[in-house]
Amino acid sequence: MSSIFGKSLKISVFGESHGPAIGVVIDGLPSGILLDFEAIGKEMGRRKPSLNAYSTKRSEPDEVEIISGVLNGRTTGTPLCAIIRNQDTRSQDYDEMQRLLRPGHADYTGFVRYKGYNDVRGSGHFSGRLTAPIVFAGAVASQILKIRDIYIGSHIDEIYDVKDVGFDRTGVSKEQLMILKEMDLPVNDMSCRNEYLEVIEKAKSNGDSVGGVIEAAIIGLPAGLGSPIFDNVEAKLSSFLFSIPAVKGVEFGEGFNITKLFGSEANDSFYLDEGKVRTRTNNNGGINGGITNGMPVILRVAIKPTSSISIKQNTVDIKSHEEAVLKVRGRHDACIVPRAVPVIEGACAIAVLDMLIGQFGIEYFGEGEIKNG
Amino acid sequence: MSSIFGKSLKISVFGESHGPAIGVVIDGLPSGILLDFEAIGKEMGRRKPSLNAYSTKRSEPDEVEIISGVLNGRTTGTPLCAIIRNQDTRSQDYDEMQRLLRPGHADYTGFVRYKGYNDVRGSGHFSGRLTAPIVFAGAVASQILKIRDIYIGSHIDEIYDVKDVGFDRTGVSKEQLMILKEMDLPVNDMSCRNEYLEVIEKAKSNGDSVGGVIEAAIIGLPAGLGSPIFDNVEAKLSSFLFSIPAVKGVEFGEGFNITKLFGSEANDSFYLDEGKVRTRTNNNGGINGGITNGMPVILRVAIKPTSSISIKQNTVDIKSHEEAVLKVRGRHDACIVPRAVPVIEGACAIAVLDMLIGQFGIEYFGEGEIKNG
Amino acid sequence: MSSIFGKSLKISVFGESHGPAIGVVIDGLPSGILLDFEAIGKEMGRRKPSLNAYSTKRSEPDEVEIISGVLNGRTTGTPLCAIIRNQDTRSQDYDEMQRLLRPGHADYTGFVRYKGYNDVRGSGHFSGRLTAPIVFAGAVASQILKIRDIYIGSHIDEIYDVKDVGFDRTGVSKEQLMILKEMDLPVNDMSCRNEYLEVIEKAKSNGDSVGGVIEAAIIGLPAGLGSPIFDNVEAKLSSFLFSIPAVKGVEFGEGFNITKLFGSEANDSFYLDEGKVRTRTNNNGGINGGITNGMPVILRVAIKPTSSISIKQNTVDIKSHEEAVLKVRGRHDACIVPRAVPVIEGACAIAVLDMLIGQFGIEYFGEGEIKNG
Amino acid sequence: MSSIFGKSLKISVFGESHGPAIGVVIDGLPSGILLDFEAIGKEMGRRKPSLNAYSTKRSEPDEVEIISGVLNGRTTGTPLCAIIRNQDTRSQDYDEMQRLLRPGHADYTGFVRYKGYNDVRGSGHFSGRLTAPIVFAGAVASQILKIRDIYIGSHIDEIYDVKDVGFDRTGVSKEQLMILKEMDLPVNDMSCRNEYLEVIEKAKSNGDSVGGVIEAAIIGLPAGLGSPIFDNVEAKLSSFLFSIPAVKGVEFGEGFNITKLFGSEANDSFYLDEGKVRTRTNNNGGINGGITNGMPVILRVAIKPTSSISIKQNTVDIKSHEEAVLKVRGRHDACIVPRAVPVIEGACAIAVLDMLIGQFGIEYFGEGEIKNG
Repeated sequence: MSSIFGKSLKISVFGESHGPAIGVVIDGLPSGILLDFEAIGKEMGRRKPSLNAYSTKRSEPDEVEIISGVLNGRTTGTPLCAIIRNQDTRSQDYDEMQRLLRPGHADYTGFVRYKGYNDVRGSGHFSGRLTAPIVFAGAVASQILKIRDIYIGSHIDEIYDVKDVGFDRTGVSKEQLMILKEMDLPVNDMSCRNEYLEVIEKAKSNGDSVGGVIEAAIIGLPAGLGSPIFDNVEAKLSSFLFSIPAVKGVEFGEGFNITKLFGSEANDSFYLDEGKVRTRTNNNGGINGGITNGMPVILRVAIKPTSSISIKQNTVDIKSHEEAVLKVRGRHDACIVPRAVPVIEGACAIAVLDMLIGQFGIEYFGEGEIKNG
Repeated sequence: MSSIFGKSLKISVFGESHGPAIGVVIDGLPSGILLDFEAIGKEMGRRKPSLNAYSTKRSEPDEVEIISGVLNGRTTGTPLCAIIRNQDTRSQDYDEMQRLLRPGHADYTGFVRYKGYNDVRGSGHFSGRLTAPIVFAGAVASQILKIRDIYIGSHIDEIYDVKDVGFDRTGVSKEQLMILKEMDLPVNDMSCRNEYLEVIEKAKSNGDSVGGVIEAAIIGLPAGLGSPIFDNVEAKLSSFLFSIPAVKGVEFGEGFNITKLFGSEANDSFYLDEGKVRTRTNNNGGINGGITNGMPVILRVAIKPTSSISIKQNTVDIKSHEEAVLKVRGRHDACIVPRAVPVIEGACAIAVLDMLIGQFGIEYFGEGEIKNG
Repeated sequence: MSSIFGKSLKISVFGESHGPAIGVVIDGLPSGILLDFEAIGKEMGRRKPSLNAYSTKRSEPDEVEIISGVLNGRTTGTPLCAIIRNQDTRSQDYDEMQRLLRPGHADYTGFVRYKGYNDVRGSGHFSGRLTAPIVFAGAVASQILKIRDIYIGSHIDEIYDVKDVGFDRTGVSKEQLMILKEMDLPVNDMSCRNEYLEVIEKAKSNGDSVGGVIEAAIIGLPAGLGSPIFDNVEAKLSSFLFSIPAVKGVEFGEGFNITKLFGSEANDSFYLDEGKVRTRTNNNGGINGGITNGMPVILRVAIKPTSSISIKQNTVDIKSHEEAVLKVRGRHDACIVPRAVPVIEGACAIAVLDMLIGQFGIEYFGEGEIKNG
Repeated sequence: MSSIFGKSLKISVFGESHGPAIGVVIDGLPSGILLDFEAIGKEMGRRKPSLNAYSTKRSEPDEVEIISGVLNGRTTGTPLCAIIRNQDTRSQDYDEMQRLLRPGHADYTGFVRYKGYNDVRGSGHFSGRLTAPIVFAGAVASQILKIRDIYIGSHIDEIYDVKDVGFDRTGVSKEQLMILKEMDLPVNDMSCRNEYLEVIEKAKSNGDSVGGVIEAAIIGLPAGLGSPIFDNVEAKLSSFLFSIPAVKGVEFGEGFNITKLFGSEANDSFYLDEGKVRTRTNNNGGINGGITNGMPVILRVAIKPTSSISIKQNTVDIKSHEEAVLKVRGRHDACIVPRAVPVIEGACAIAVLDMLIGQFGIEYFGEGEIKNG
């Protein structure tokens, strides 16, 4: 029943798209961590719409106000609350929004769940805008993970029918992940970029939209993180990833494709690399029995095409209880995938940090204060 | 850090494959529900190995002893504990099990996680045998869901390169689901059955294994179940599904394939069916914004090929810390997918019941006592 | 490890005394509840310092800004975030605060817990000011409880060596509780008021402080709320009550005094009152086996004397690691008990609402929308 | 809604007094801890009825069967399940138990909560017998705490109107606590023992019962354990302590009596003891702002007189819905306090271990394997 995630590190997300502000409370952070707010701002910038074909032109600055939990640039260890004011809340056809259920959106389910009392302006609490606080919290989490040399990065693996080259699942490096973070459309094979833009542009010109797949890598995690059965690493990550709007599938390592392999192909055989146990392949995405094995954790997330399209759609008027035709107006991203990249990374960072603190204690990141200082 | 799942209905799974017993505590059940133990036994029978090509011949009776929580055949409302004694725990090459890490298994991760103190006999707490208590709890949950006309069923959608016909996502019926429950290899297209058996037999004859995909349907759920962001229906279901051994992917509705559709194709348009809001298609798997829309909830789960194969594999001896060659002996399922079917269904039942009780209260199933009586 | 309370209704408190703001996120509220903000403001006013002898003169307006979760005066059902700006944060002897541990305060424990990185200005997150968001959330909860005719009130039962007349534990009425809410020093026996003021005034004139006991009553709860063993009503209430600064004891019904009764005296015998099961006495405070029995829930909470006193105290300088003498300067309440009254009531309201929603579902308060409308 | 306690270390208690067995699942234990089962058995023996005046003569052996989680005498780290068979379940006047509500018991509240479907034989899940699994889990927890030199002990501070000498709250030692563990009626002032027995004997001869107060001490806890506001040490401990049947009050340090002190008396001033920060007095019971300060944690728990008495009582027949007179037959403890001692200690051990693991990680007890080995 909640917008709260986590056990040891808890994230409480709040706000509606057209209310005064959106924000997040992060509870359970280690104290004394020097936060790099420029880096956080940069990460939040990645989620923002750009001038590219694929995104809307709404230009909200997403300026974060820190309400609590930071003193002299360092975490205090007590709850960190940050809010982002909503500024660009131009008036919409509110009556129509209340009446005509947008297909693919949460208009109908939100109406039933909240008996019509939820804020529907700009999708309210269901708005993709609510991912901004997740990116913020994820950026904070990422900085703490860095203390233990844990890094998260991702690339756009597919958009519609175009596919990038996947991660080298045994060899993905910090350098590679950092380079991807600098790209507006992060790809491993640069030739994909234009193809992606073309596919998006074509959908846009038709008033339509496309989706895609993001592949993420988490490197540097210690072996032995997680638990069998519930609270395992895949369960934890997937439960956050499926909390991100538009996500319809999550898979680890070879994922669904592992069913196309024989056991002898799918099993990742062990070897010793300078005394360290490693696997030759990484079809299991760095996780066996729900617990990390020290190899990169690799996962893929399916993002559906943006629900808001200009093409006319059949629907129902929930007030008059009659069938109707809807033409969604206003600005829409023809493809939300690029902006979802930092959200996916942030979700991974938060979930992983929660697990690490839960298993190894808050002291695990204690030396951070020195490293940062 | 736990083998406990749930918020309102909690499932605590315990036991090791070769210890005295395995079992489960179910906490938070409504009281007064008349349990049909024959139906529960039948459900547990579906998880058991059969004489077919695809499974091992270990013939453990899986007899359940109810320790608490049931009186005169009805739930008391206090914790229901059930245990299943381990009987067929023939001695194994224990020393080898402790030394040679089986690729694809949790031997290495379990070793690191528990510092070598976990019970490795028959995979211990990581054993697939631990899914028996989940099937038991799932069968109990299913009976309670029936009170509200909620039904769960599934079919084997793929094994290796063979594919069944998927569910009609807008029209799947209780009758269809009940028929599938009677089949040893539940399929929509009966011609698949032999193809499945052939693929499995071939893998088996090579000492190899194959995996597959299970598609499940949950019908009868009210619209409005779930919450935005965290604790949504997809997050909840996936977190349980990824807790089942060998699961490497979970998707809802069209899942990963939805990225191959344009928004205008992916959006499920609304219409009125005798005054009730329904969608023409069900690409979103009955869930919008994390909340049920009243259409069938459809999901697919990828099960990797059984890790235990007779083919020699390279590995590491964790005691001598040297590379080694492993030939796994003993009985193995060449394909675990058929036996995973009731586990997936049970997981769905538990997760959904937990959400229903959490949102609507234990009274929601109150009339069950009459219906069952 | 957290500042989050609750299972179905979750309260996330954040902020530091001298940071930008303090606040709360309330997650899991039923939707459509018309909130009476005047009543909420009045409740918050009860926590504020007055011009009386017993409290400081810091006059912070405690104006609440609703960030989310309310639309047109009604709850949307999505997280309600409210913040209160800190305005009167005059500069203090910050260096001394960082050095000299105030006896009875959390200076030392906060220092160890957060390794010296927590915000110590005005006690930071440990400040009594953090009870303002609890009063706010409690006032919201109280309004929802009213829909089911559940009321909470309290009186100051003791200050130092003066004692009020306790509640009639079988007959306490809504009217009586409402009258108490109008009093600045709520008492059952009006003659206590002056005695209380005298005791406080005397302590104040000595630069000292006094504590006391608050007795609260919750009326209108249905019988059958709660569960045996953990998550019972006493466990739930006490866990919130002990989260309020300065609380050192909690008891239900006769509490510690019940040990001075024989079983034949302590047992509350049952009788029928117009067909309804009631008890003749209420020594168990309306709770048997952790579950409500339909009688008023009665509890008492011990509040220690304010730790901040003007009298010189021996302490330790945590920076120089030498013993030192401290004279706390600035404004202090000579007795915090009167201001703690709405906090205790708010805590009870939140804990009880969480349990009711958890057990009976959010629909339990569904008709509120009509009643409020 | 549950019989599950804890966040990092979870305790799931199950069973009914006259069902097949009672038991507990302990989830989240560190691995590799060598358990001393003789010591555990001894601890469980403390909870058992003796031949003394104060307790019943039911002589159940309370033999524990370990179902899972232990291998070669050491914890595996996976869930530890232990069950205790119910043997002495002689037939009772079951019909009367179902009809006549015993005052002070949970008969009425259990009836309402579970709609009459709960097992009422021997009080079912509400039975004091359910504290046996808590003592077992507590004994396991205590052995793990020992690795970090954390010890818990207690004495009977009051029975009816007789009072023992309280702990020296700044100087209570491990030796003192260990001596108390050897006593059937643990007291600091040996002269109390006979007085206690006399008071109990007198109540017994009248067919009546008496209660009392247990004072417990937890020594060796590091400073800095706990968090401000919720999840603080007092909240955590009290929430478990109020889960023990018959507990009606919990206080820390001076507790309710602290309201009889001036601030200048109540504040525990700091000093340096060989460089270590300590307090001269310990009126706050080792806890400031919800966080341990390194001094002994001292708490007191009020246990009400046993509800089952032979004296006739007025009550209600819940089936015929008429007033009635009840004479409880069978064996009853005239005073439950002595048998509650190991339960209180076990509860403290579990709560404290849960907090320690939650804050410092499971590795915190890692060296235990050496110390135990």
